[in-house]
Amino acid sequence: LVSVLSSAIIVYRLPWTWKCSKLLMKFIHAGLNTIAMILTIVSMVAVFDFHNSKSIPNMYSLHSWIGLAALIFYSLQLFLGFAIFLLPFAPVPLRAALMPIHVYSGLTIFATVIATALMGITEKLMFSLQNPKYSASPPEAIFVNSLGLLLVIFGALILWMASRPHWKRPPEENAKVLQLIGGTPEGTEAESTMTDGSNADKSELRINSEAARKQNLKLDEAGQRSTM
Amino acid sequence: LVSVLSSAIIVYRLPWTWKCSKLLMKFIHAGLNTIAMILTIVSMVAVFDFHNSKSIPNMYSLHSWIGLAALIFYSLQLFLGFAIFLLPFAPVPLRAALMPIHVYSGLTIFATVIATALMGITEKLMFSLQNPKYSASPPEAIFVNSLGLLLVIFGALILWMASRPHWKRPPEENAKVLQLIGGTPEGTEAESTMTDGSNADKSELRINSEAARKQNLKLDEAGQRSTM
Repeated sequence: LVSVLSSAIIVYRLPWTWKCSKLLMKFIHAGLNTIAMILTIVSMVAVFDFHNSKSIPNMYSLHSWIGLAALIFYSLQLFLGFAIFLLPFAPVPLRAALMPIHVYSGLTIFATVIATALMGITEKLMFSLQNPKYSASPPEAIFVNSLGLLLVIFGALILWMASRPHWKRPPEENAKVLQLIGGTPEGTEAESTMTDGSNADKSELRINSEAARKQNLKLDEAGQRSTM
Repeated sequence: LVSVLSSAIIVYRLPWTWKCSKLLMKFIHAGLNTIAMILTIVSMVAVFDFHNSKSIPNMYSLHSWIGLAALIFYSLQLFLGFAIFLLPFAPVPLRAALMPIHVYSGLTIFATVIATALMGITEKLMFSLQNPKYSASPPEAIFVNSLGLLLVIFGALILWMASRPHWKRPPEENAKVLQLIGGTPEGTEAESTMTDGSNADKSELRINSEAARKQNLKLDEAGQRSTM
């Protein structure tokens, strides 16, 4: 589950995928998250069945509470992701405004899933290791502790990859290059989920020019300053 | 501990502090982290004393392993933070190169500390609640689970505040404004921990002009495109 989630998160961050169309990458991102959701549902059913068959109460531990909270937010994230970023109806300013929130929630849910896994490991080790006990550090305890530590390192690496600006997929360079060399822009626009594919570029350019305006402002200040 | 860590993290993100000098804010950030480190050391001593007095083995659980890893990285973070960002010896390009790593490690350590606290809560509830057991959901279990959930929400809010670009402290606007209105730049430069305070601004301007160059490149592309 964590590995599927991770691949879904970093799928835009692999430079060799930047030549693939954005729509294909969106489908892969959505598909991997759908697989993760199916795995989650299967494991939920397994946990409740296991608890019921052994007459263990459900949902009493902090592990289960935080896991459920993560699951609720993940469902919401998946639903809103489909509705806003995959279906072609949401206007570009809405997409642009919600993207930072989508990225933040995705990464926060991912971190929460890892924390939930760590609590689950702690519970399982305390329940299952009885003779010798967990506190006697039998080989199983050392082995599973190491797995938990690796899980944290792995999660930290994924968050690093996902938060580096220079590993971000460049904004529709393909489309621009195609148009500059006189290619058929319709080919790339048809692949977008927007009804008017060029809107995306316009909005992005508006953001860019806004940024450039601010940069120029700073440069003006600098100019004024260097002449003082 | 978590609240001191949090204040240390968001101390640059409070708009009403932007009028304070950067050096003062650095001292507050470093001071809060030093307080957090002292609290950590006190709690470490308390834990080991408690374990030894009750003949409980030390460092056997995943909670303790991940907690120790977080502590090691936190010590490293504090030491490098002092050496590079507070002491006036590190050159500006080094500071600029290490700042994203400093921010990333700080936030990752913070998230790891919250995960460690959640594992600690899980352990404590499983050990201490015996009659009625944790699985019977006595009021204490509900209460402490709620605290754990609040801890996750609190951590998520801090990470949100720390990752919003528009809540970032503006780069030395005070100094620039002072110089533009003919104030004494020496006053602000004397406050910097750099031997040559203006280097920082120069480096920043170089980065800005680089960004502006890229923005202009994009705008040029846009111009070419709109005329096609």
